[in-house]
Amino acid sequence: MKLASLKDGSRDGQLAVVSRDLKHAVFTQGITRLQQALDDWDFAAPQLQDLSDALNAGRAAQAFAFDPAQCMAPLPRAYQWADGSAYLNHVELVRKARGADIPQSFFTDPLMYQGASDHMLGARDAIEAASEDWGIDFEAEVAVVTGDVPMGTTADAALEHIRLVMLANDVSLRHLIPPELAKGFGFFQSKPASGFSPVAVTPDELGTAWKGGRLHLDMRVHWNGQLVGSANAGPEMRFHFGQLIAHVAKTRVLAAGSIVGSGTVSSQDRARGYSCIAELRALEMIEHGEARTAFMHFGDSVRIDMLDAQGKSVFGAIEQKVVQAGAA
Amino acid sequence: MKLASLKDGSRDGQLAVVSRDLKHAVFTQGITRLQQALDDWDFAAPQLQDLSDALNAGRAAQAFAFDPAQCMAPLPRAYQWADGSAYLNHVELVRKARGADIPQSFFTDPLMYQGASDHMLGARDAIEAASEDWGIDFEAEVAVVTGDVPMGTTADAALEHIRLVMLANDVSLRHLIPPELAKGFGFFQSKPASGFSPVAVTPDELGTAWKGGRLHLDMRVHWNGQLVGSANAGPEMRFHFGQLIAHVAKTRVLAAGSIVGSGTVSSQDRARGYSCIAELRALEMIEHGEARTAFMHFGDSVRIDMLDAQGKSVFGAIEQKVVQAGAA
Repeated sequence: MKLASLKDGSRDGQLAVVSRDLKHAVFTQGITRLQQALDDWDFAAPQLQDLSDALNAGRAAQAFAFDPAQCMAPLPRAYQWADGSAYLNHVELVRKARGADIPQSFFTDPLMYQGASDHMLGARDAIEAASEDWGIDFEAEVAVVTGDVPMGTTADAALEHIRLVMLANDVSLRHLIPPELAKGFGFFQSKPASGFSPVAVTPDELGTAWKGGRLHLDMRVHWNGQLVGSANAGPEMRFHFGQLIAHVAKTRVLAAGSIVGSGTVSSQDRARGYSCIAELRALEMIEHGEARTAFMHFGDSVRIDMLDAQGKSVFGAIEQKVVQAGAA
Repeated sequence: MKLASLKDGSRDGQLAVVSRDLKHAVFTQGITRLQQALDDWDFAAPQLQDLSDALNAGRAAQAFAFDPAQCMAPLPRAYQWADGSAYLNHVELVRKARGADIPQSFFTDPLMYQGASDHMLGARDAIEAASEDWGIDFEAEVAVVTGDVPMGTTADAALEHIRLVMLANDVSLRHLIPPELAKGFGFFQSKPASGFSPVAVTPDELGTAWKGGRLHLDMRVHWNGQLVGSANAGPEMRFHFGQLIAHVAKTRVLAAGSIVGSGTVSSQDRARGYSCIAELRALEMIEHGEARTAFMHFGDSVRIDMLDAQGKSVFGAIEQKVVQAGAA
């Protein structure tokens, strides 16, 4: 099934079940917020599934036209956003551009950071920034939402705790990253609010594209209307989602509703383009000794989408515009 | 007023107003969770204040004896835990022990990291760890809970967004920190669940001890029953809470219920002892060339408390025991 949180003036939005073709939606009864469903998934999921079945069969009462512009993030505020960097091609390129090798440990120990989760952006919400000088960039990612995960879980067992899959735009302020990482405590100001796809879907909805804890579909990224990336999110994801979750759960439990991200999808195949501008700039630096492409300007747009084997959007598209803070 | 979230089998606990002397409590009506009150503070606070006034005057119906052992963290799961390191004496000592100076920028640019907030520990909850080899340490901190904070707020304006003040035990796994920070993305496995004081209090409750965004009271830390720390949390806090909040809000909004921590309270006055074992070990390294004190063992306890001018506990004490994971 596919779930969305629709804008209703509240902080968490109104939970809705969305049809497989993303054309219709229906509000749920009783369970009105996605976090509520995640808190009690075994109780909630069968009811939501029944509603989804009815909606897909065209027999849901009070169904209405689904409008992605009305979507908040599936979890407009979440209790955790743990983001990985599981595509080593991305890590390798970015490091190479600054003359650094990739440490051997990176092939066995996932790179992850704790992100902010108190305010997530909906699929059409603007990316607000005070200055273009911050180096505004998008990062197209796959993200999962977990149920409760016990401390010390194995990677295989962790896969069983994945409730939902969605797309994310992990907005990054590139020029704020080097001084921030130099302080040694990780990202903070350089990682503002992230955006999420209109709907989150259960893994069963993905069919054979979901295997081994990876999503084997192309991440289609448009920048100002031009297709710049189409890397397959599956094969080059070094650590699958079970491994990322197990990494986080090594020393603590994860509460239901935790979001875990894959990191920027990336491919060694240059013809697949890029899922973040930093990668293009890294290639330019390696090739020309300098980055030639500027980061995003006010007014720029990014579109992040994923199509199934039939060419239909799975999650709906993230379509965000960069605006000057205060001007929105 | 003083607020607590009492264990009731739910994920968020039952909101209660606690008397100034921490002897009695009364359940709230209508507003049943602390996050709910924070979401709509201007509406909720006056009602809670009325109840607090009645309770302190001994005329609250259905008041009951307050038991800190029944407390969850005031926010058992929060949308954000942004922790600072605002006592530069701590930073200086820890760096000195490894032969590093303190960069000049650290005096003007706060050191902060994004912590996990999906699962917070109550004041009497055990600290679970799989291994003593992780280097289990406590860190006694002051923490505040904010309302909604706009992007780009000034430090002075940020002070107005502080709703509650509490104590925190930012549990740290010291031996996991160096390899993790070496990866460049900050803390993750090295910062497991944090513990919080039984009650959170409004700033007005602190009287003159709360000034300039700092809490001028001694942080009393007992390790296995022995008083090891009594640093005043006020004078040596380089960045006040408004500055820490403004740092976080530079590139994004903060949602109501965000928790911002001070970092380990620390004093240059050696007679004041220490608020985390790492600091004692740093002193040992500087003095003897090696750390002589081991980190916490299974069965060890830590007690973190703060007394007002009359010698009464303000927040109730954090009293946590270290247990082997799975054995709790």
